[in-house]
Amino acid sequence: MKDLLKNLKLVLAYDGTRYAGFQRQSNGVTIQEELETAISKITGSQVKLIGAGRTDAGVHARGQVANFYSETTIPVEKLLKALNAVLPDDIIVKSVTEAAPAFHARFSALSKTYSYRIYNSEFRPVFERNFVYHYKYPLDVGKIEETCLLIVGKHDFKSFQAAGSPVKTTIRTVNFCRVHRDGPEIIFTINADGFLYHMVRNIIGTLILVGNGRLTKNQFRRILEQHDRGLAGPTAPAGGLCLEEVFY
Amino acid sequence: MKDLLKNLKLVLAYDGTRYAGFQRQSNGVTIQEELETAISKITGSQVKLIGAGRTDAGVHARGQVANFYSETTIPVEKLLKALNAVLPDDIIVKSVTEAAPAFHARFSALSKTYSYRIYNSEFRPVFERNFVYHYKYPLDVGKIEETCLLIVGKHDFKSFQAAGSPVKTTIRTVNFCRVHRDGPEIIFTINADGFLYHMVRNIIGTLILVGNGRLTKNQFRRILEQHDRGLAGPTAPAGGLCLEEVFY
Repeated sequence: MKDLLKNLKLVLAYDGTRYAGFQRQSNGVTIQEELETAISKITGSQVKLIGAGRTDAGVHARGQVANFYSETTIPVEKLLKALNAVLPDDIIVKSVTEAAPAFHARFSALSKTYSYRIYNSEFRPVFERNFVYHYKYPLDVGKIEETCLLIVGKHDFKSFQAAGSPVKTTIRTVNFCRVHRDGPEIIFTINADGFLYHMVRNIIGTLILVGNGRLTKNQFRRILEQHDRGLAGPTAPAGGLCLEEVFY
Repeated sequence: MKDLLKNLKLVLAYDGTRYAGFQRQSNGVTIQEELETAISKITGSQVKLIGAGRTDAGVHARGQVANFYSETTIPVEKLLKALNAVLPDDIIVKSVTEAAPAFHARFSALSKTYSYRIYNSEFRPVFERNFVYHYKYPLDVGKIEETCLLIVGKHDFKSFQAAGSPVKTTIRTVNFCRVHRDGPEIIFTINADGFLYHMVRNIIGTLILVGNGRLTKNQFRRILEQHDRGLAGPTAPAGGLCLEEVFY
């Protein structure tokens, strides 16, 4: 029987605005729940979906990856269309492929790329309002850019982890951290082999303090080195964050 | 007393998704109503707002213009900030300036530019879903581009007017009509000295028939020349339409 089980890999995009995050939970509708319901409807049997990144409430994805085991005989191309026909309009499956039996969306991931968008203008954003963090005071992008290079490489990111998160190690390797201005927006792109809980949002919140002059590059460096969450800046809001891609 | 009356001109952007259009009406919340309420709150007196274009339910604006008369002594820069502080997050005032007493947002307008976005992909749009018309079959943009030039100039656009609209004349001058592809999107930009009710959406709906091969350029020309709404294509959905700019 085990031979009949396929391991199906999904690439997903979603607007996380109205969801309580990716992972199934008791309070609020989640992306996982919507997908599991859609898959059950189409394949006729209940599944347990594994997501690469457990995006929080209000966080978006353009390239989330998930997998599930199924005995379905529906060809992947048909499954793709059928899922998109029943999913709500703020979630889409971009591809369905058959993966190796051992493939695990979360544990097989080598790295992930997140983006974070700041809308840096005196004016509120209208069309982008759910996808950016509106910050209306001047920010020095040059200083932010110089400082954000400090996180590249293998570091203990404990200072940027949400207090009290239970993980074995807080050491992660950031492969790149880029920032650029595009009109009123300041866009960050960060790739790492893994992310601690709230890590990107805490880094962005602290980099904003560098951009507005309240912290120097050296102070940022000391925060990173001291492994104390209490020293870092506030957690930047969820809406600006988007899981762009997962690499295997 | 009349001397104390200022004629204030607003430039507005809004996400029209949750509104019953610009103009005040009994069924549904409108942009006009939200703005008039905000202005009354700030200036302390009731006003009647005049909009340049009466955008329909679901239609957006990046550069709508409106004006109102007021005795307020609040400086325009303060008025701008105060209005944006009380308006809902899907409407923003981009500027407030004092106009000449005779300035009328609608009648003084020399021309307006609208854009229309088609999301031409097999996949549903996720982030853009309220701002585009999702059309999943192939479209020949070259043919659409060639054909849309036929509407440029002074023409009787009766074929593209919503049936039964009461207007003095159905003759309008289109100054330009451009179309280009940007990734999965096909974006139209049309400027004219005035637009009939549903004119842009009816033109787009008919150009889609040219793009998918159901109409030829010559058939489109005959539709334009015969002044008969019954011959033209369907009205393209509201969400793709955006009032970009009003020229005075």
